[in-house]
Amino acid sequence: MHPLHRLPLLVVVLLLPAAAWGLAPPRFPGSSHPRARANAVGGYEYETRYFRQRLDHFSFPGVEDDDAFFQQRYLVGRGGGWAGRGGPIFFYCGNEGDIAWFAANSGLVWEAAPRLAALVHRYYGESMPFGSKAKAYNNSKSLAYLTTEQALADFAVLLADLKRNLSAEGSPVVLFGGSYGGMLAAWMRLKYPHIAVGALASSSPILQFEDIVPSAIFYDLVSDDFRRESISCFQTIKESWKALDDQANGEDGLLKLSKTFHLCQTLKTSEELSDWLSSAYSYLAMVDYPIPSEFLMPLPANPIKEVCRKIDSQPEGTSTLERIYAGVNVYYNYTGTVGCFDLNDDPHGMGGWDWQACTEMVMPMSYSEDRSMFPPYKFDYASYAEGCINSFGVKPRPRWISTEFGGHDIATVLEKFGSNIIFFNGLLDPWSGGGVLKNISESIIAIVAPLGAHHIDLRPATPEDPDWLVSLRESELKIISGWLSDYYGARGALFQPGALKDSSAC
Amino acid sequence: MHPLHRLPLLVVVLLLPAAAWGLAPPRFPGSSHPRARANAVGGYEYETRYFRQRLDHFSFPGVEDDDAFFQQRYLVGRGGGWAGRGGPIFFYCGNEGDIAWFAANSGLVWEAAPRLAALVHRYYGESMPFGSKAKAYNNSKSLAYLTTEQALADFAVLLADLKRNLSAEGSPVVLFGGSYGGMLAAWMRLKYPHIAVGALASSSPILQFEDIVPSAIFYDLVSDDFRRESISCFQTIKESWKALDDQANGEDGLLKLSKTFHLCQTLKTSEELSDWLSSAYSYLAMVDYPIPSEFLMPLPANPIKEVCRKIDSQPEGTSTLERIYAGVNVYYNYTGTVGCFDLNDDPHGMGGWDWQACTEMVMPMSYSEDRSMFPPYKFDYASYAEGCINSFGVKPRPRWISTEFGGHDIATVLEKFGSNIIFFNGLLDPWSGGGVLKNISESIIAIVAPLGAHHIDLRPATPEDPDWLVSLRESELKIISGWLSDYYGARGALFQPGALKDSSAC
Repeated sequence: MHPLHRLPLLVVVLLLPAAAWGLAPPRFPGSSHPRARANAVGGYEYETRYFRQRLDHFSFPGVEDDDAFFQQRYLVGRGGGWAGRGGPIFFYCGNEGDIAWFAANSGLVWEAAPRLAALVHRYYGESMPFGSKAKAYNNSKSLAYLTTEQALADFAVLLADLKRNLSAEGSPVVLFGGSYGGMLAAWMRLKYPHIAVGALASSSPILQFEDIVPSAIFYDLVSDDFRRESISCFQTIKESWKALDDQANGEDGLLKLSKTFHLCQTLKTSEELSDWLSSAYSYLAMVDYPIPSEFLMPLPANPIKEVCRKIDSQPEGTSTLERIYAGVNVYYNYTGTVGCFDLNDDPHGMGGWDWQACTEMVMPMSYSEDRSMFPPYKFDYASYAEGCINSFGVKPRPRWISTEFGGHDIATVLEKFGSNIIFFNGLLDPWSGGGVLKNISESIIAIVAPLGAHHIDLRPATPEDPDWLVSLRESELKIISGWLSDYYGARGALFQPGALKDSSAC
Repeated sequence: MHPLHRLPLLVVVLLLPAAAWGLAPPRFPGSSHPRARANAVGGYEYETRYFRQRLDHFSFPGVEDDDAFFQQRYLVGRGGGWAGRGGPIFFYCGNEGDIAWFAANSGLVWEAAPRLAALVHRYYGESMPFGSKAKAYNNSKSLAYLTTEQALADFAVLLADLKRNLSAEGSPVVLFGGSYGGMLAAWMRLKYPHIAVGALASSSPILQFEDIVPSAIFYDLVSDDFRRESISCFQTIKESWKALDDQANGEDGLLKLSKTFHLCQTLKTSEELSDWLSSAYSYLAMVDYPIPSEFLMPLPANPIKEVCRKIDSQPEGTSTLERIYAGVNVYYNYTGTVGCFDLNDDPHGMGGWDWQACTEMVMPMSYSEDRSMFPPYKFDYASYAEGCINSFGVKPRPRWISTEFGGHDIATVLEKFGSNIIFFNGLLDPWSGGGVLKNISESIIAIVAPLGAHHIDLRPATPEDPDWLVSLRESELKIISGWLSDYYGARGALFQPGALKDSSAC
């Protein structure tokens, strides 16, 4: 067993509902849970529009090329206090097509936004080059333009156009994004300072490349989250991999395992099961929120505590694997409505993030020996690359992201370069291991929530939010207000934004 | 008559000797003057190397694509004081293939450089995608990757690789460039701050796009240079266009004009001649140096003064057109060795800059009515675009450069973003109209030389250099030393650069 081959799939599965992802991730039967949709749209008004976007911003096809453009979907809405011409625009660097999910999980932006726009990431949702998903995902030639640089240029071109068409050329744009979208927000501010005055990059692991952070950090942090709740729970999980292998290698092993874990179909390999378990632990660490959530799965508050309670509280004599089942059942079946679990997934399929992970977004992932609850594994680039060649006929460029966007030595590089970025990280979130955790300068700020998980700051405010979360959101909005004041001040503009605090639900 | 359709050709003709340009510009019979080559190489040591460069940095062709890479030429040399590992690297953002010309015209860099590298711009000189110039320039599909963004990414990838291979990962890189190369240097620092600590962008008209500066500014400044030397000279030129038209429309007009101007072949249109004259005036304004130079043409010190002296000092009764001939003869035939002038040029041909001007580098150019010595003309985008479609089958993207790199409102955008750029401009240089002429922040500095012309600061030091030029170069090197000290200071490095001033020839 080894860490999920191209782990960052996780990021986007979290960002994308099954429908937008295209390849429905069957590991997560609750992902299109109807309540999540119903809750989300309430109160937010938006329009869906389409923009004629260029397929390739960085080369020039001839005028006759039909495929040179595609229709890209974006949303324009108004939050609390649109101040008219010259008022700020909040822009969500998105990658998903489902407005319900979008609204539900970026409440901060909606609630504080004077005017809001969000662009659907190319190749996701309805923003398909070549006229259809089937054609866009056909092969490496059609997928070739699914890159971060093209996505950032999409944002730039749309925003420039939007400002012209809204007669809002004097409007400052503030970027928002979480997870992969947070990386885009930060990189967008760094590459296009003339387009946006600042960025809130929430839970964006921009350092999770090459050797910038240890490759084991992600799973070490997942493990820490479990150890923190219960040492015996951590130990049970750590021992379970061997139990799983032993069982698998015994007579009718895969059949027995399939029964223990209530799978709909009999396992073909034990790795299918270990990947399924490993995914659950990773997701649990990411959504280990102090309040109930319905991100992709309906979950209780502090879900890891709940999982560990189940694992630890089984009657004496319960086998390790049965304890594990009881635990992950909290994640995969909290509502208790799932009869059996369907593991059919296609991790080497033509999913958009798989492509991105096989080209630019190479994030080395290992399991460490001591700190981790996973069996030791060292990232092996050669086999990673081989998988990509087999899946897509494409060779990754493992050094490209740090060449294009930097990352090494980021504190000294950006100390006197760049401004107006907030890097938020919750330390329970395993992606915080690849995040910026220390202030870089007076205006490139790290906000760290010791008890926060994956972009918790962006989530809509609820009455149960702990005080630290309320005040963290206030701090972020205050910093953003400062960027806007600077912007208007430098231009001697009469318009002064006062709406941010008022319209915030915090 | 209208301003040269895609004027920026001028920039690159100045940057490129005829051989590198490929399409020899026959307007400049002195461009491969042997003395220029012989002088230049003396004292500078370098190696020519080749790098396997990616054709398209921003999309991902399949592994089997033979054309995905090409061999890109670069130079590595040592100037005065290479300080070993960790010592600074000076990088010339180049676009030319002739080392003699390069060395002759970037003496500042060679003389001050501890260690020097220079990359030949893709599609120029020997750095040809698709294996040959004929194939690279074949059509819009093969030319598609000749863009500034690809060129910057070439720099980034090469520099990252170079530092690894030289075990110089701790070495700060300082960028240098003049004219179009200066634009690349400035944009490179803005887009890749993790690759280079600062940039000297000499005579780089990064604001000469869209409506950022008035479209007539370039030719107004050319005109100012002539008026400054002699009002009667200015007037003679201003009147000459009508004289030229009248002559052309008379009996045997084109034949007579061809004789007056000693052309090798009879004119087919009068525009050929007016473009030839207009080019001479523009180039003269760019190279209006206070000392003799052999940039593309061997010229005396203060060449405009000399041209105007000729125009003004003809015997009474000399016709306007004969005066003009006497004047431009200084530019085109200072050595007196040219028997007749060959105007055969192909302004709509497949020259690299023509392609760039027809895609990204759309710089609107007009002739104003009053201030200019040229006949009034207003930039007409529609006919510009039509010319590009006819020449290359490609439609320009006139707003792309300002979307990708900014430009509007640059002072407020960069006031709190970015650092360590010197924008040098000489006010005699007509490209200064599109340059950054005021300090933007403490470390984004404008250095302006009222009596300087096109990137005079980069030229090799000579004993005749005026004091202001000597002290201007000292200022630039002092600022660059400061960047290096900051770099080493921030890293607590023991290495301290002290070589810059010592090795400078200033």
